[in-house]
Amino acid sequence: MQARGRLIGLGVGPGDPELITVKALRLLRESPVVAYFVAKGKKGNAFGIIEAHLQAAQTLMPLVYPVTTEALPAPMSYEQIISDFYDTASLDVAAHLDAGRDVAVICEGDPFFYGSYMYLHDRLAERYEAEVVPGVCSMLGGASVLGAPLVYRNQSLSVLSGVLSADELKRKLVDADAAVIMKLGRNLPKVRQVLIDTGLAERALYVERATMSNQKIVPLAEVDPMSSPYFSLIIVPGERWQG
Amino acid sequence: MQARGRLIGLGVGPGDPELITVKALRLLRESPVVAYFVAKGKKGNAFGIIEAHLQAAQTLMPLVYPVTTEALPAPMSYEQIISDFYDTASLDVAAHLDAGRDVAVICEGDPFFYGSYMYLHDRLAERYEAEVVPGVCSMLGGASVLGAPLVYRNQSLSVLSGVLSADELKRKLVDADAAVIMKLGRNLPKVRQVLIDTGLAERALYVERATMSNQKIVPLAEVDPMSSPYFSLIIVPGERWQG
Repeated sequence: MQARGRLIGLGVGPGDPELITVKALRLLRESPVVAYFVAKGKKGNAFGIIEAHLQAAQTLMPLVYPVTTEALPAPMSYEQIISDFYDTASLDVAAHLDAGRDVAVICEGDPFFYGSYMYLHDRLAERYEAEVVPGVCSMLGGASVLGAPLVYRNQSLSVLSGVLSADELKRKLVDADAAVIMKLGRNLPKVRQVLIDTGLAERALYVERATMSNQKIVPLAEVDPMSSPYFSLIIVPGERWQG
Repeated sequence: MQARGRLIGLGVGPGDPELITVKALRLLRESPVVAYFVAKGKKGNAFGIIEAHLQAAQTLMPLVYPVTTEALPAPMSYEQIISDFYDTASLDVAAHLDAGRDVAVICEGDPFFYGSYMYLHDRLAERYEAEVVPGVCSMLGGASVLGAPLVYRNQSLSVLSGVLSADELKRKLVDADAAVIMKLGRNLPKVRQVLIDTGLAERALYVERATMSNQKIVPLAEVDPMSSPYFSLIIVPGERWQG
């Protein structure tokens, strides 16, 4: 019986192609099949990061999201549609694994830090050998380009989604020494107001597409919410320790 | 006048030497001076990660901590001793920068995520050009080897220090969807009891020296607190999203 292929969750880093790890680059080159999540009609950030390393013999496997927003008109259910999509994608990946081919699923940032790879992993890792290669996550890419040390000594860090309600965000921010707020986009005006209300706006830093060639750093007060992309984040660094 | 050297905070990843980024490896090789924090009599984790890449012409600059514990007998003050140490280390680094030599300060994990580099950065980045290369942080290295997807969709993540009091830990854990607790060592019995009290012990995973050659994964209930190293961590992954 033929040996089964390995499922590989491959973190490729936050955007700068040089921020991929040596291990991810090696496994990428060794993988006969390279899969990646992508919105319809887009190239995809993860794909753009590793594109230059692909070889003609590799099979590319785009996994195209059926919807691009979680807010769908009734009776459509985002949860159902996206769950069906992950089911189908898992079957497609499993077909390669059953045929003995390793499949590298490339992931922007880190595979286990809000990555779509997690939904394939949950469906397949019990039946197939799986390896996850961690990557530099977007919040650390962001901190580096902002020149913002994130957490000192015994400070705590809260990583929050901008999708949360203003009340939830406030409650979670009150107790945090340092915070990162991801998934901004249309949530930006709400998040900005919460930061003003909690007295954190002065310390908050904003960056779009950190470490990518089109990276943009703007004072938070000047960000135009209409043009703030999903791949933007706000960092509230911990207070500097005078040690 | 001679151009000044650049200060480089170089994240080298969580332990596996292959988890260094391509960029960090390039800048490491290009840097005439390589500095690293280390305990007296030790080689240092960061140094061990990059040792194989060093060249004879590079100047090594160990920055040796004057103390290894924060609990000192009076009238000694950890804060004062360590602050003086960072002052001196900054002057030593600045001497190279003034002479036009780049200094790469290698950091286990990521430089801005609880890294000692932050204290040099705070002292020098306003006067010298500084570049920070983000790295794969220990908690994502840990999640990868535990096979534990960390945060789903709009879940929040709390990163906490095991040094916090039991009450503080409880308060911060109650509201977290997912959590990572770092700096265990002697704090392990306290942290374990807090996880039991908050009902999170069943979900909690423990790993020592994640991604290093001497990595150890043990069920949390079986960890011997006497032998738990500082470089161990506990991960409470977010609840699996059934999407």
